[in-house]
Parts: sequence; structure tokens; C-alpha cells
Amino acid sequence: MQAQLHLALWQCAPLPLKMAGNLLRLDNVAKDAAQSGADILVCPEMFITGYNIGAAQVQALAQTADGAFANAVAGIAKRHAIAIVYGYPEREGGHVFNAAQCIAADGTRLLNYRKTHLFGELDRGQFSAAPLQSALFELHGWKIGLLICYDLEFPENMRRVALAGADMVLVPTANMPDYDFVSTTMVPVRAFENQVFVAYANYVGAESDVHYGGLSSVASPNGQVLARAGQEPEVLFATVDANQLIAARMRNTHLAEARARLEDR
Amino acid sequence: MQAQLHLALWQCAPLPLKMAGNLLRLDNVAKDAAQSGADILVCPEMFITGYNIGAAQVQALAQTADGAFANAVAGIAKRHAIAIVYGYPEREGGHVFNAAQCIAADGTRLLNYRKTHLFGELDRGQFSAAPLQSALFELHGWKIGLLICYDLEFPENMRRVALAGADMVLVPTANMPDYDFVSTTMVPVRAFENQVFVAYANYVGAESDVHYGGLSSVASPNGQVLARAGQEPEVLFATVDANQLIAARMRNTHLAEARARLEDR
Repeated sequence: MQAQLHLALWQCAPLPLKMAGNLLRLDNVAKDAAQSGADILVCPEMFITGYNIGAAQVQALAQTADGAFANAVAGIAKRHAIAIVYGYPEREGGHVFNAAQCIAADGTRLLNYRKTHLFGELDRGQFSAAPLQSALFELHGWKIGLLICYDLEFPENMRRVALAGADMVLVPTANMPDYDFVSTTMVPVRAFENQVFVAYANYVGAESDVHYGGLSSVASPNGQVLARAGQEPEVLFATVDANQLIAARMRNTHLAEARARLEDR
Repeated sequence: MQAQLHLALWQCAPLPLKMAGNLLRLDNVAKDAAQSGADILVCPEMFITGYNIGAAQVQALAQTADGAFANAVAGIAKRHAIAIVYGYPEREGGHVFNAAQCIAADGTRLLNYRKTHLFGELDRGQFSAAPLQSALFELHGWKIGLLICYDLEFPENMRRVALAGADMVLVPTANMPDYDFVSTTMVPVRAFENQVFVAYANYVGAESDVHYGGLSSVASPNGQVLARAGQEPEVLFATVDANQLIAARMRNTHLAEARARLEDR
């Protein structure tokens, strides 16, 4: 396990239906993030196509996990030698999922994750809900999981990923100002109660009537906020440290002591 | 369901091994709280005997749930017409549990709860861990659950009580300053993610080398902190409102949408 990982969270305004534009600006931001020393760049939910684009566009634009979006992002990742997590609409058979994928600095697809808890009509009108999932990928010896936006608000989801062995969970999101509480207060609690790092990458700006609240953040396993963005576009950098993880797990032992997984709820 | 309930949380210094003294001061505080309009008074964890008193004293002092402590508290509750939640060491057979009991204003024992998640050697040296539990009591039509201190730090416990139908969860605690994060940040998250009111009643002061951090609080189902004490002795008052509960449940639907109880974790 590499002693430190350097994260970049890209808190941008959405650019709906401009896939080429999004890939172009991703190329620029990935280049800058890599030059700043970041090992991995995390984009918001549904970054490639935009999020509030309607069911017809979602159906028209959705790709398989190894499709055109993945190939384009893999090219960017390889060009700048940085891992990238990006949100996109994923087609599989008759379903379209709200998905996020991590592609390694060598272009390998490391993990694809599908949102399990759909948020209101915005999600239910556009996507199928995915089966619960706790797969991890490895980056420089760190075990890393993915959740998307509303998934984080259910403690069961973070617990599942933590019990699978995650050291860190990356969360592309599209969180509205009415739910700033999730960014400011729930993110550090999820980190603390599971002894994991949590990185929450949000949009700012708006897509028609849906507004986003920024406040992207990285929280440590002791509940400390290592970095928090404001409510303007920003690339937020944070360094997560294996020693901090070890110290938090020596001090707090909730993950080992939670009894509900062993008994009836 | 009565439109409002008036709560009093007694943030006091512990008075270890002074049972008569604790019952005397409970009588005074219950009188004042009732005169201020409180329907229920919540004392900290292990209030009757003190908490950090050692296994020998715990064994010597433990009572059954309908024993001498219950009778004394029932007398106080009846005298001042106020419900009381108090912590005490409960004996049952060969076990002693870290327990909290609610006694109604008419002296009826409404609910006895035993701590399920033991905190370090302080708890494990003194108590047996209880089976998971989600029983509720009713007060003026409100359904109310109990947890004790470290139990709150496991999201599974609050979820279990909320799924059983709780409108509010009362939490006698003995939380140390190193864990102020639990008081300030986790309490409102538990309320928000389960759409319940949460009242967290802590000590201040110390018992030998164990110090307590105060910051007792009441959080609403939308994550708002309705009232928070400082780090000095205080009786903290708060009013919880059924309309706020209904509004929060209209807006946030996590409890209905959490999938983990229906599927494998």
C-alpha cells in the first residue's frame, strides 16, 4: 500500500449533451491534475453527458461500460498518466444505469459501478436501479470502492463497501443546495463510522431547473474534513495517508464491532 | 399523536456510588422540569449509580428492571407527573446489563433497554452485551425508542429502531471530549437518515480518569439541531413537533427506500 494517494476532485458546472466538449475539458483538467501530482481525478455524476437530460437523451446516448466513452476516457488517462473516475449513462441489455467507472492511468477499466438507490423522479424517470454491489478496485495498493450520490445517504451502502475491505470510497454526485447537509455533515460521518476515507465530488451551477451546491469534500476515517470546496468551480486537491487510516482503525473499531451483519435486523 | 412533546435533557456531572444523592437531585430536577412544562426528562447513561464505578460495584449495585431503583424513580415520576428515562445497572440472572428505562408519569414502567454495543474495556469490564432490540414505548401517541451511547455510533441500531416505527429515539450517553464529533455531527445525521427526532443526553465533568464532554442535543428529522447544550451542567429543553416530523417524511424518504433490509448486504 503506497503511503499516500493524491486525489483531485473536479467540481465543475455540468455541460449537458456536449460529450465532445466534456471530453475536451476533461483532457485539459486531467493534464493539469496530473501535473499537480494527482494519482486520480474524480468527476461528478453523469459527467460525460450531463445528468438532467431526460429519458429520451439518456436512452439515445447510453453506452456499454467498454464503449465509446470508456475508450475516450482511457485515451485521456493514458495520455496524462492519471486514473479517472467519471459518471455516464450505461447501457446493458434493455436497461440504462446511472453509472460511474474508474479507468487506470494505463487505460485499463478498473471498476464499473451502477447507482443502486435512485433519487426521486429525476433518477427514476431516466434509469434502472442496479443490484446492490460492493466490488472494489486497487490503486497503488489501496482498495477503493464507488458509490453514486444518493447511495451515500443510506448507511447500509457505505457499510457494505467498507465491510468488503475498502480503504476509501469515491462518490461522484450531483447534490442540490437543499441537501448541503449531506456534503457538510453526512460525508464525514460516513467516513468516521466505517473507518474509511470518503471523497465526494459534486457539480456547481445548474441544468435547467436543477441546481447544484458544490461543497465537494474529502473526509478522513476519524471524521476530519481534509479538504472542502466552496460553491464555485474548482479542482479540489487532497492527500490521503495510510498512517491516518491505520491510526483511525486502532482508535475506532466500529467496523469490527458492528453486530447487525451477524444477526437479524 | 399529541402535536408537540416537551423534552428536558439533564446534562449533569456524575455522582458515582451516591444512589440516594442521585435520587434526591433527580427529585429536584424532575420537579423543576415538570414545572417548566416538560413531558419527559432524560438522564445520562448509568445515572443512578454512576458509570465508571468498576465491575465489583456494578455487580454489587445492579437491580432488576422492577427493583428498588425503578420503585424510587416511579415515586419521583408520579410525584411530579413527568416521565423519566434513567440509566442504571440491570441484573438479570447471571448477567448485568448497561440499561436505561423509561417510567411514565403515572409510575408505569414503559420500556427497559439494554446496551447492545459495548464501548471498550470500560463497558466490557462491567457489563454483558445485550441482544439487539427495537421495542418502542408510547408517550402521548408518540412512538419512542431507546439507545445507549455507543449504540448510536452504529447506523444499524438507529435504523432498526426507526424501521420498528419510532418517531423519536432517546439516547442516554456518557460521551468523552475525544468523541465530540458524535455529539455535534453524528446525532443530526442519525436523525436525518432515519427521519426521526434524536435526543442525546450526556454528562459533563468526570469520574476519576474518565471525562465527559456535554454537548447534549436534540436533532430534528431534517438534520437541524433544535437545541444544544454547552460543556457545563444544564437542563436542556426542546420541543419536538409532529408537523416537523410529517414534513421531513414527505421530503426525505430514506426509510422507505433503504434496500438493504430487503436484500443481502
